[in-house]
Amino acid sequence: MGIINDRIKKLRKEMKKHDIDCYIEHNVDPHMSEYVNERWKTREWISGFTGSVGAVVILKKKAALWADGRYFIQAENELSGSNIKLMKKGLNETPEIKDWIYEQLEEGDLIGFNGRTFSDEYVEKLYKKVKDKNIKIIEKYDLIEHIWKDRPEIPDNKIFIHELKYAGKKRDEKISEIKDKMEKDNITNLIITQLDQIAWTLNIRGSDIKSVPVAISYLMIGKNDVIFYINKKKYNSKIKKILKDDGIIIKDYDEINDDLNNLKKESVVSYDKNTTNRWIVNSISKAATIKKTRSPILLLKSKKNNIEIENLEKCQIRDGVAMVKFLIWLEENIVKEDISEIRATKMLKKFRAEDDKFLETSFDTISAYKENAAMMHYHAAKESCSILKPKSFYLVDSGGQYMDGTTDITRTIPLGKLTEEEKRDYTLTLKSHINLASTKFLYGATGSNLDVLARKIMWENGLDYKCGTGHGVGYLLSVHEGPQRISPKPNNIKMEEGMVTTIEPGVYKKDKHGIRIENTFITVKDEKMGSDQFMKFQVISYCPIDTTPLKIEMLNKEEKKWLNQYHEIVRKKLTPYLNEKEGKWLEKKSEKI
Amino acid sequence: MGIINDRIKKLRKEMKKHDIDCYIEHNVDPHMSEYVNERWKTREWISGFTGSVGAVVILKKKAALWADGRYFIQAENELSGSNIKLMKKGLNETPEIKDWIYEQLEEGDLIGFNGRTFSDEYVEKLYKKVKDKNIKIIEKYDLIEHIWKDRPEIPDNKIFIHELKYAGKKRDEKISEIKDKMEKDNITNLIITQLDQIAWTLNIRGSDIKSVPVAISYLMIGKNDVIFYINKKKYNSKIKKILKDDGIIIKDYDEINDDLNNLKKESVVSYDKNTTNRWIVNSISKAATIKKTRSPILLLKSKKNNIEIENLEKCQIRDGVAMVKFLIWLEENIVKEDISEIRATKMLKKFRAEDDKFLETSFDTISAYKENAAMMHYHAAKESCSILKPKSFYLVDSGGQYMDGTTDITRTIPLGKLTEEEKRDYTLTLKSHINLASTKFLYGATGSNLDVLARKIMWENGLDYKCGTGHGVGYLLSVHEGPQRISPKPNNIKMEEGMVTTIEPGVYKKDKHGIRIENTFITVKDEKMGSDQFMKFQVISYCPIDTTPLKIEMLNKEEKKWLNQYHEIVRKKLTPYLNEKEGKWLEKKSEKI
Repeated sequence: MGIINDRIKKLRKEMKKHDIDCYIEHNVDPHMSEYVNERWKTREWISGFTGSVGAVVILKKKAALWADGRYFIQAENELSGSNIKLMKKGLNETPEIKDWIYEQLEEGDLIGFNGRTFSDEYVEKLYKKVKDKNIKIIEKYDLIEHIWKDRPEIPDNKIFIHELKYAGKKRDEKISEIKDKMEKDNITNLIITQLDQIAWTLNIRGSDIKSVPVAISYLMIGKNDVIFYINKKKYNSKIKKILKDDGIIIKDYDEINDDLNNLKKESVVSYDKNTTNRWIVNSISKAATIKKTRSPILLLKSKKNNIEIENLEKCQIRDGVAMVKFLIWLEENIVKEDISEIRATKMLKKFRAEDDKFLETSFDTISAYKENAAMMHYHAAKESCSILKPKSFYLVDSGGQYMDGTTDITRTIPLGKLTEEEKRDYTLTLKSHINLASTKFLYGATGSNLDVLARKIMWENGLDYKCGTGHGVGYLLSVHEGPQRISPKPNNIKMEEGMVTTIEPGVYKKDKHGIRIENTFITVKDEKMGSDQFMKFQVISYCPIDTTPLKIEMLNKEEKKWLNQYHEIVRKKLTPYLNEKEGKWLEKKSEKI
Repeated sequence: MGIINDRIKKLRKEMKKHDIDCYIEHNVDPHMSEYVNERWKTREWISGFTGSVGAVVILKKKAALWADGRYFIQAENELSGSNIKLMKKGLNETPEIKDWIYEQLEEGDLIGFNGRTFSDEYVEKLYKKVKDKNIKIIEKYDLIEHIWKDRPEIPDNKIFIHELKYAGKKRDEKISEIKDKMEKDNITNLIITQLDQIAWTLNIRGSDIKSVPVAISYLMIGKNDVIFYINKKKYNSKIKKILKDDGIIIKDYDEINDDLNNLKKESVVSYDKNTTNRWIVNSISKAATIKKTRSPILLLKSKKNNIEIENLEKCQIRDGVAMVKFLIWLEENIVKEDISEIRATKMLKKFRAEDDKFLETSFDTISAYKENAAMMHYHAAKESCSILKPKSFYLVDSGGQYMDGTTDITRTIPLGKLTEEEKRDYTLTLKSHINLASTKFLYGATGSNLDVLARKIMWENGLDYKCGTGHGVGYLLSVHEGPQRISPKPNNIKMEEGMVTTIEPGVYKKDKHGIRIENTFITVKDEKMGSDQFMKFQVISYCPIDTTPLKIEMLNKEEKKWLNQYHEIVRKKLTPYLNEKEGKWLEKKSEKI
């Protein structure tokens, strides 16, 4: 831990140079991406804590790191030896970061951070908290940059065009829809900083972030022009021409600063306060009018067009075939060799990669045996990784990025003898899944309204899964995509036709087992009664759900019917792409119950 | 309609005097009460429209009135002959009031209204809309006051003390809890303008509003003092002494203006922007700091204390007895005489009024035969009122204000032969009711999460009721009480232990029938699993649910069990208070299915 203490010492020297009394870092990139490129793992570098979420606050004499429940144990290990105090988020006794800073600092003190990696909303809240103590904030210093000698540069990976046969809608059509919405809202300039929104709008993709094929860039849609800010190394003249032919101007990544600076008095600029970084916000000309609104692209992007849906259907079938091949391999080999969680992950990727439209996995596979699966976000590390044994459950949550879609599926596989509790919990999970998946709902319902349909059966049995029930899925974009989500948290996003969303309830019992059954669904229209449009979920994940762990007596008629119908669909979709042996395996696995 | 045109003419003269180009009225009192005293039915007086909600906007040459779907037909009738245009709220082509005003007015025009009857939130939004057209707003003129010659005065009905044996908690205890919350939030002055919050805090009641036993007044809770602003005629020296002994200062109703004016620089004033009128807001000293927050009293008031719950239990039993007597009377007399909806209402009130703790009905009874019940908020008027016939359904939604509680219950009663559709819809309504009433849920769930548990069965059958599923109920206060509600609309209020809430799904078919089954429930704790506290609804409405319309084959085992258990409870609770004949009737009505 000498390294960490040494780095913090160097940071404090930098802080002193600029009179900064408190410095904040938190593994966030300028685009508020869910996953970040190595360059922006600044909190990891300065603190040693490798979790995906968490901030570190360095004072002149103290330092503290906030981590959530998933990471309490890991953070404790990774911080041991350093002088950074672990703050366990969510516990009653743990203060919020801004409250802690407020308590620790004195009147006239200075807080510093790199404004490029902090959202407008975050900083506004911090300002509000500290202003009555006359604490100042300076947003322009990236102090880590000065001391992290071999820090990776902004990636200069090449972008590529996502062809119309995949994207389904021309970029100029998309832009014109966005402009219509801007006109309605009297907005002259829309700033887009989220990378998946930019990629979707321009029908381009990149490879700057692992598992999410996007490119570091900004986008500004003006009344009369569209400017794409991206570094020169990232595109060739062919791509430049394609974009130029559609009226898109390309400028360097950082040039957005000048353009924002020079906005005229008549400009009405819109940005999303939750995802736009402060460097951008501070660049906007003081003469312009600002409207903080949710980006219209979020909703447009979430409602998949017909070609996207057609493609996704094919992509999901190929993904299902890979899953089936993996499951057969697992069944055959578990008795022959020691299969570790990591080896299973690699084999699953191999089966997916056989497809020529496959690019990469859509997130780090969760390959978790038995009690490991009780940790919802478990990732097998080389050292701690378990060997699969012919008993209990093995959970595998995985997905792929394909040219024609993004997949996400979880199966919990019985490897041998199960306890009664394991069977019961598996059956409850399936009941919970079916109760939501089979529901018909009135157009207008949100994921926050529908969540309980899955959760109710858990509650009846004194259980609860400590996460949402489902999330939106991008199309060759982020596997977690808004604006909809199925969760008890209040939200006002209606489930719209064409949205792609997962349903993934589960049972997680510490030191025992973790069970999750996840499929992906498209929201489609059902009947219309008068002016009432009803909707339903149409499944698009094709892979058998193992029936051997089920306590059949716990299932009612409708649930059995749903499962048998689902297996019929799976057989129909996958069989044409399986060899005889595989077909027979699937037939057996999908037998009527 | 000469009267209305004449009144509007006079109003326009007043508008001209003050250079006002646009004047707004909307039957709202200075306390944003759900129901208002006659004095504040200003929109009704100026427009002739008698509905409970709706605003009228008078321009120099035009006038328009906004009414919602419940009132389209009624408003059309009531406005005919006047020159007021009906704006049908909720239709796509209907502009919002503020957008319409913005379109109609010209630069430099002046909007006027009586600031005492407009909430801060309403006016802020109006300002925001019109400011870029340089339209001015003047909030100080109550023009109706000048032309409504026989306008009722502010009522001077006497208040009375709600004794501790009913209220269950002393006023100084309540105030100290409120002050604790204020201290936590760094608030020095809390302004309370909602009459039920004031009544609850001070353990007083009044009779200024029909169906809601409250008194026109304001309340300001300061760090060191509590001031109750109420006109002198409304209390006697005995009450003054009781309040004074608890440290409550009494001042005249309007004196709050001076006190707000004189607030010092150190004051941090809090009020609820949705329920505080602009006259109050404009009175606050410019030196003071303002924090717009939800009143802490809302949540405190909603969680009934143990004595309130004990009392409510007794009150609900007496209310149930009155309902049973009414149902027996109805059954016996429908074959003997012509019973009109209004006569039934009167008889039900008579049975309730036999109880010596009864004060008044808690809202205007909805007594609706057959297709009349399809109008959710139907009120039998003398002219249009139907005669009950021995076929189809009769719906009665009613409640009482008692010294020891407020009740609200709906039963749908078969008066004779039913159609298959009526039976099916009745059974669906009961299934929907039971599915929510019997649920166990994790602490933290909101009414917005739970709503779908009742609604799902309707959706499955292509139906939907166009209203929430349930609302909070006050305690000798408003029958509709926040902050919780069971509705699909997003809200973040958890269902807390001790909250009293209705469950009242229904089926409404225009020109056919309306069915609703409503009981009231207390939220109570269920089992605790680890740190997961589960909750459930405990029923406190006691009156049989008619089983003869049920299509028994549509009910599953759990639903039958719930209904049989409910009827067992009803029998156990009510039988001791019934005579032999009534007891036998109840026994038959609550037979096992």
